[in-house]
Amino acid sequence: MLLIADNLHIMNPVVAKALQARDPLPFKKIAEHCTKVNAYAMDINLGPLRNNVEEVITFVIEAVQDSFSGRLVLDSIQAEVIAAGIKICKQPPIINGFSLEEGKLQTILPLAAEYQADIVGFLIDEQGKIPSGTEERLAVASRLVAAAEEREVPPEKIIIDPVLVPLTWQDGTHYNRALIETIQILDQMFGQPIRTIAGLSNIGAGAPARVQRQTAEAAYIFMLAASHLDYILMNVAQESNLTALNLSQLLLAEKVFAWQEV
Amino acid sequence: MLLIADNLHIMNPVVAKALQARDPLPFKKIAEHCTKVNAYAMDINLGPLRNNVEEVITFVIEAVQDSFSGRLVLDSIQAEVIAAGIKICKQPPIINGFSLEEGKLQTILPLAAEYQADIVGFLIDEQGKIPSGTEERLAVASRLVAAAEEREVPPEKIIIDPVLVPLTWQDGTHYNRALIETIQILDQMFGQPIRTIAGLSNIGAGAPARVQRQTAEAAYIFMLAASHLDYILMNVAQESNLTALNLSQLLLAEKVFAWQEV
Repeated sequence: MLLIADNLHIMNPVVAKALQARDPLPFKKIAEHCTKVNAYAMDINLGPLRNNVEEVITFVIEAVQDSFSGRLVLDSIQAEVIAAGIKICKQPPIINGFSLEEGKLQTILPLAAEYQADIVGFLIDEQGKIPSGTEERLAVASRLVAAAEEREVPPEKIIIDPVLVPLTWQDGTHYNRALIETIQILDQMFGQPIRTIAGLSNIGAGAPARVQRQTAEAAYIFMLAASHLDYILMNVAQESNLTALNLSQLLLAEKVFAWQEV
Repeated sequence: MLLIADNLHIMNPVVAKALQARDPLPFKKIAEHCTKVNAYAMDINLGPLRNNVEEVITFVIEAVQDSFSGRLVLDSIQAEVIAAGIKICKQPPIINGFSLEEGKLQTILPLAAEYQADIVGFLIDEQGKIPSGTEERLAVASRLVAAAEEREVPPEKIIIDPVLVPLTWQDGTHYNRALIETIQILDQMFGQPIRTIAGLSNIGAGAPARVQRQTAEAAYIFMLAASHLDYILMNVAQESNLTALNLSQLLLAEKVFAWQEV
């Protein structure tokens, strides 16, 4: 399971302030931390951009690429933001992302075809809903891959995100249990390996205390790793997340095991 | 994932001493603790018994059943120990267990047919070896179920134990990774639900410190729970194990989730 940092997000006050001031330093610091913790990629989410799209995205990506040589995940609901970003990425970017919603199929998905880029496909149906059970999820996955193939994006380019939901949702744990089952059987359903990603930070929304949130996130890291999730998108400033990820990689033979590392 | 306590084991010095002295109190105390932590069952392993087999097993089971009303797992390589125990169990016992080794097929497996009891089937081949990869494990599982059916023990009565190995083994993490994959796909391979069990205490053999062992055991609890293991056999005197099990049950919707319980 490879690590993707979700720290460069407009909801992070440090990011919002630095973007406003066009201060590259906070971006470089986040990028340096991602390098330090061996992140495979960094997600970049600047929220909706109204003006100077190309200038803004270029400023951020250049600041980041000075200090981080991994891949970038271009996370936006605006095709023009993603398109502007793709052109200046030094490594193959990952587009984040599309779903069965018509707008996304029309505007975001074609970028993956045009630039032959990897793209995240959310298991969200035509009406914008997250399916609750495993069977509905597999059905949505099947329609998602078919829609991509129609637009010349092959399954090898798709990274499915079955969308972890907050534990405070009614039936939130049922949704997330179905997510775990789904990622375990996707490969078999498609008859070929399909990559998967999950965003961890969502689950803790509404947690009464930081320690509880950390405990739940660490537990999901182990559960998702055992289910062969390919990419985990998470807060890399949280030490307990990194500890759990490292241990899961040791125990699942992705690294050489030694008790001293535990 | 249901809890089975492995504390009543002859390797536990308290148990060895109490057995020697025919002191029922330590057995009752272990049983009371199992009741307190809501264990589904208790494994009873008294080691090889040479004399007074019936007297010894009766003494222990009666002491335990005074304070624990769950199921008992009769864990022995001696058919006569298991047979003596079965007769006095108040709840349906679980026989632990058989494998493809000829001796086990000849002596232990027939007890499951005779008493229509659940029986643990170890994924250990005809030569007494634990298969390393997932495919070999599935092949052994298939031969194991076939051997049981030949002796009138249907798949519904079998609880497969793919045998967690110590992390200090060469390739120990590869073995255990294959175990996790195996339990995820057993149902699909058999085309029907097959129950599974794993013994956690084995993995920590050789750990340099207690805290590392605890950390690794907790991680496996989450990974095995996400893989839909049915029964986890573990040390219920270790608080961190119970905490991890409780959290996994909350997160996997086996209990009603509330942040206060995390």
